[in-house]
Amino acid sequence: MNNQQGLRIGEIELGMTASYSQTITDADIKVFAGLSGDHNPVHINEEYASKSKFKRRIAHGLISASFFSALFGTKLPGPGCVYVAQNLTFRKPVYIDDTVTATVSVTSIDLSKNRVFFSTLCTVKGKTVISGTAEIFIPQTEDC
Amino acid sequence: MNNQQGLRIGEIELGMTASYSQTITDADIKVFAGLSGDHNPVHINEEYASKSKFKRRIAHGLISASFFSALFGTKLPGPGCVYVAQNLTFRKPVYIDDTVTATVSVTSIDLSKNRVFFSTLCTVKGKTVISGTAEIFIPQTEDC
Repeated sequence: MNNQQGLRIGEIELGMTASYSQTITDADIKVFAGLSGDHNPVHINEEYASKSKFKRRIAHGLISASFFSALFGTKLPGPGCVYVAQNLTFRKPVYIDDTVTATVSVTSIDLSKNRVFFSTLCTVKGKTVISGTAEIFIPQTEDC
Repeated sequence: MNNQQGLRIGEIELGMTASYSQTITDADIKVFAGLSGDHNPVHINEEYASKSKFKRRIAHGLISASFFSALFGTKLPGPGCVYVAQNLTFRKPVYIDDTVTATVSVTSIDLSKNRVFFSTLCTVKGKTVISGTAEIFIPQTEDC
C-alpha cells in the first residue's frame, strides 16, 4: 500500500484492524455544526446543555463516526475503496475534550463481490460510545 | 416548538417529514477532510480521481448524511432530541457541486419508550444517493 493505493482485496485478512484516536474539542463541534447545519443547542449552547439530561455540551455523534470514514479511506483498506454502508448505534454521549478511539476490524470478506465487512467501534476511556458495522467495496482496477 | 425546544413525542405524527437541500462544494469536502482526517484522494485529489471509476472527485458520504443530523437536531423533532441510531447505504456517488436534498420521514412511533423511527433519504436530481433509517429518543423532561 502506498499513499495513493490502498490494499487490494486479496491482501485483506480476517481480523485486520486499524485505529485512530482524537480528542474532540469545541473546534470540532463548531466546524461540524457549520458543515452540517446541526446547531442543536445540546452541542453548541453551554447554558442550554447545562439544563439537559447530559448537564454539559456533547459532541455530534457523526464527528466520532467520521473517523471510520478516515480509517477506511486512508488506512484499511485505504485509498480507492468505496463506502457502501455504515450502521451506527450511539450508545453513550461524547463530551467536549473526550478522547475518542475509533477502531475498524475485518469481520468478513466476499472475494466474489470484492466486498469487505467491518465492525466499527468508538470508545472513550475503554467504554463503547458508538458501535456498528460497515461494508466496503474495493475496485479491482489497477489505478483505483 | 421554539428555537430551544423541539417537538414532544405526543406532537409527532406518522408521515411527518422535513427536508434540507445544499449544494456540496469543494469547501465542504475540504472542511470534512480536515475534521475527519479522511484525505482519501478520491475526495481531494483531482488528478487521482480522474483515473478512478468515478472520473472526478466525489464528496465524502458522511457530508450528505450529516444533513440528517441537522434535520433531527433543528427541525424534526428539533432541539433536545437524542440520536440513537443511523443506518446508511451509499447508493450513488455525490459529485462536487451536486445539490443534495436530505429528507427524514416518521415511519413509526413508540410512545412507551419515547422513540421515533425515521426513513432517511438523500437525493440528487431526484435519484437516491443515500438511503437508510434512524432512531431518535425524545426526553420527556420539560427543559430538554
